[in-house]
Amino acid sequence: MTKEALLLTIAVLGGTGKEGKGLAYRWAKAGYRVLIGSRSPEKAVTAASEIMEILEGSSSVVGMTNTEAAQQADIVVLTVPYAAHRDTLDGVKDMLKGKLLVDTTVPLVPPKLSKVQMPAAGSAAQEAKEIVGEDVEVAAAFQNVSYKHLIGEEYVECDVLVTGSSKEAREEALKLVAAADLTGWDAGPLENSVVVEGLSSVLLNINRLYGSKHSGIKITGVPARPPE
Amino acid sequence: MTKEALLLTIAVLGGTGKEGKGLAYRWAKAGYRVLIGSRSPEKAVTAASEIMEILEGSSSVVGMTNTEAAQQADIVVLTVPYAAHRDTLDGVKDMLKGKLLVDTTVPLVPPKLSKVQMPAAGSAAQEAKEIVGEDVEVAAAFQNVSYKHLIGEEYVECDVLVTGSSKEAREEALKLVAAADLTGWDAGPLENSVVVEGLSSVLLNINRLYGSKHSGIKITGVPARPPE
Repeated sequence: MTKEALLLTIAVLGGTGKEGKGLAYRWAKAGYRVLIGSRSPEKAVTAASEIMEILEGSSSVVGMTNTEAAQQADIVVLTVPYAAHRDTLDGVKDMLKGKLLVDTTVPLVPPKLSKVQMPAAGSAAQEAKEIVGEDVEVAAAFQNVSYKHLIGEEYVECDVLVTGSSKEAREEALKLVAAADLTGWDAGPLENSVVVEGLSSVLLNINRLYGSKHSGIKITGVPARPPE
Repeated sequence: MTKEALLLTIAVLGGTGKEGKGLAYRWAKAGYRVLIGSRSPEKAVTAASEIMEILEGSSSVVGMTNTEAAQQADIVVLTVPYAAHRDTLDGVKDMLKGKLLVDTTVPLVPPKLSKVQMPAAGSAAQEAKEIVGEDVEVAAAFQNVSYKHLIGEEYVECDVLVTGSSKEAREEALKLVAAADLTGWDAGPLENSVVVEGLSSVLLNINRLYGSKHSGIKITGVPARPPE
């Protein structure tokens, strides 16, 4: 359990979904206090109980509304489908001042999920930054990790590319990546999120054509892992 | 030597540069007839001689102007810096009808090389398609491979993501990837090239921050390689 874990509370908005629940599980396991947010507080409470059950009670996971979770947390992680991206952010933006927002959203546009189609802002992460404004630092991460890998002890063979509106935002998000037992990389400014979000469409195309269910990426050619 | 190699001539425009020369070397080694194109035919002839020397004469590599190379080739590969992208395409577009254009260009904008900055068309590859028009199929590939790895027998630990204006264009480009002894993946429509081109900025950022000179990517989680 790290010092950060003892001090910080993470809200996972949309945390009843598969990816959100998986991330919540990993952070709770690492010792963070985790708040599961949902439009439906009942579903959030159920999801929190499920995670506590898997971890046999040795952690702190609580369910509540997205608004309550955003208000009580130090770091707010957004794991809603893109269709709910703007509405969810509009609903919580007043609670985010001085906090870090970590956006995991991939702006997939049905039916052509394997074609990169970014919003006018350039990417979902840039759109989030426009909505939350100057007083909130935004990082984007976890877009390429298959949720199937998150609950459980399985080694996840997919690196996490982290972009962000400042170096500090990326560094804080990289701590969350490490706490989730994943390998993260500083992938540069928030504008670079188009690459990471778009990569999810490329990976979906690879899944479709090459018979995989959870293709991912690894960074190669770097001599040694940097210190966490 | 494959059947394709015996039948096809590949022009490498800007083939006196490091990446172009590396690709030309690999394709000549695989048995393709290779034309090195350059604005300077003298430099092209010199580059062709250098490759022939490394391969000890057992191949066909000829140097000439970009225009002549584009005219005589079946497949035209563009390996010029982004600053020369539009001019080079304008100069050869009339010779490309019915041929495949393979664009390797990364639209880096100095001084912020590690920040993704795409042209108005969406990506260099989409810009190329706009310039060459309806009668030319365009694929984009090789943007992330470090040129340092191309000349020599060294195993290249970087996969090649191939986008293209049609499935046929991507399949033909994937044959060139395999001929260059690299692992390629169909990464979807030409619109997805923003991901692949932008990934070069992300990798430059990783090089800068993590002390690497040639980071790359590998696709993970796909059970078996597809048949080439």
